[in-house]
Amino acid sequence: MRYEIVELLKEAAPGFVSGQELGRRFEISRAAIWKHIEELRQEGYSIEAVPRKGYRLISSEDRLNSYEIANNLSTFIVGRKVEYFDTLDSTNNFAKKLAGEGCPDGTAIVAGQQIAGRGRMGRSWDSPANKGIYITVVLRPPMAPEETQILTLAAAVATAKGISAATGIGTGIKWPNDLVIEGRKVCGILVEMSSEADRVNHIVLGIGINYSQADDEFPDELKHRAISLRMASQNIKEGSTKEMSKLSVIRSVLRELDSCYQMVLNGKHKEILDMWKKNSVTIGREVRFTMGDVEYTGIATGITTDGRLSVDCTDGKRRDLLSGEVSVRGIYGYV
Amino acid sequence: MRYEIVELLKEAAPGFVSGQELGRRFEISRAAIWKHIEELRQEGYSIEAVPRKGYRLISSEDRLNSYEIANNLSTFIVGRKVEYFDTLDSTNNFAKKLAGEGCPDGTAIVAGQQIAGRGRMGRSWDSPANKGIYITVVLRPPMAPEETQILTLAAAVATAKGISAATGIGTGIKWPNDLVIEGRKVCGILVEMSSEADRVNHIVLGIGINYSQADDEFPDELKHRAISLRMASQNIKEGSTKEMSKLSVIRSVLRELDSCYQMVLNGKHKEILDMWKKNSVTIGREVRFTMGDVEYTGIATGITTDGRLSVDCTDGKRRDLLSGEVSVRGIYGYV
Repeated sequence: MRYEIVELLKEAAPGFVSGQELGRRFEISRAAIWKHIEELRQEGYSIEAVPRKGYRLISSEDRLNSYEIANNLSTFIVGRKVEYFDTLDSTNNFAKKLAGEGCPDGTAIVAGQQIAGRGRMGRSWDSPANKGIYITVVLRPPMAPEETQILTLAAAVATAKGISAATGIGTGIKWPNDLVIEGRKVCGILVEMSSEADRVNHIVLGIGINYSQADDEFPDELKHRAISLRMASQNIKEGSTKEMSKLSVIRSVLRELDSCYQMVLNGKHKEILDMWKKNSVTIGREVRFTMGDVEYTGIATGITTDGRLSVDCTDGKRRDLLSGEVSVRGIYGYV
Repeated sequence: MRYEIVELLKEAAPGFVSGQELGRRFEISRAAIWKHIEELRQEGYSIEAVPRKGYRLISSEDRLNSYEIANNLSTFIVGRKVEYFDTLDSTNNFAKKLAGEGCPDGTAIVAGQQIAGRGRMGRSWDSPANKGIYITVVLRPPMAPEETQILTLAAAVATAKGISAATGIGTGIKWPNDLVIEGRKVCGILVEMSSEADRVNHIVLGIGINYSQADDEFPDELKHRAISLRMASQNIKEGSTKEMSKLSVIRSVLRELDSCYQMVLNGKHKEILDMWKKNSVTIGREVRFTMGDVEYTGIATGITTDGRLSVDCTDGKRRDLLSGEVSVRGIYGYV
């Protein structure tokens, strides 16, 4: 009910809603209303109380909590259950714990800050408070482990679409699932799977988006290799971007993840691959990768139906990559 | 030091060791010795105290605890760290928790009973108190996820060797990693993996061995399909089996797991596959399996270098199976 009060205050803002009206609406005493208002204030909502006028919501600023993220999200699977935390060690770690305890398909974990954010291959992921967006979604697809590569690509497509819908900012996909702007990384996705030979127990899909860092707020080793949505929006001429809000990016990404997840479950892999290719900043470019201690260079020519990157190598052979580190010319300082 | 006292008492049994001698040996007071003896008794060791004679270990019966399992195991990786519990929900679940917290490669979890023991595909595994052996080992092989099938086969080989070394009882391997005696299941192995695209985070390898159940102690649905080592030893003529002890089976299995794990890490996959084939009760037999909703029948002809079961099907085609349910004629009631 606490959040129904928030909804009423939002509708009325910048006007007031009287305590009497709130009490009548929810059939509780004015003292009980006061208690709810106090709780909402503790959660960070700025609510003004004026004698004989009532209450009003002062700040229209984003308030991140489970309610604001999940309310009216209208998704089918992803985000039906949302848990928000100001601080977590790692959203993927927490999601794995919940998954082990049996949380439902599509459960989303969102954090304002990660103390020990992780990237691929055991690397750390810089996750300063209030600068980034850190989301992990638990998926339980009825698929065999070897069929799940499509979900890695679908996650990149969905996040790119979500960012674009919420901010107007376009991103390119570096294989398999980094998002880049102007050759710099704006988003990384870490997919981890728990599986038996025959089936997936669960997948945790962690998404880290650089949201509001300034150029000089990135660690030294990421200088000129990382960019935030805020930086990108300032580089784009006015009018072409929407007013940004972290909450709207989170909600938009969850909606697109839901939509892409359902496409995968319904066998629409070709549509996912087509969207991936459309946003790719990898296909048609020179790439460099290592396979069995040998370094190869070639031109990325396409993506196979099972999600591998096809590369025509300089030695005349075509190689299809399932994973591994791939450098793309023009991205992250490979010139 | 508590367990050093146990070692001294074991050496002296059935004789006594005086409190004075124990005190001198460990340079502590006789009151302190008494305290250690009391703690050992609480752990289940039967120790008699007789005035002017000292202490002696009465029962030579297996005492299962971390010390007895790990002491002088002389392994390199598996079992360097052992945690024993009288009861766990599931040794695999507990092992996954430890793995997530960073426990070392080779950590072994052993339980006397599982409240919610699990088999493959989300099935339950009947795990009554003191009737079975429940071991899970955490492995952290530096391998790509798609290369790990060999570990599943190595686990079956190692467990068969461990049981044979400790009891003299031979078992056959039903693909991929069930152990069978007289067409009945004596051991199931559940391999679960946590992975990224490029690397394995950890593997938990759960081994459930039916140790001392009588025929009528298995649940109805397992009647005539399950067998215990105790039942098997009674069916074999005297003299051909060693005296069985649960502790020796556990230690023997851990030793063989260590040995087979190192073979895998050293690239000796062919040796593992050869041992697997030698113990196989699948190759050369009629098998039945389902692939994409179609049921096939054929003769299992061998195992591929990457651990797939090759089947010459009745439709004239050869199919290589990575996983899935395979019924083998002559086993578990398939006649």
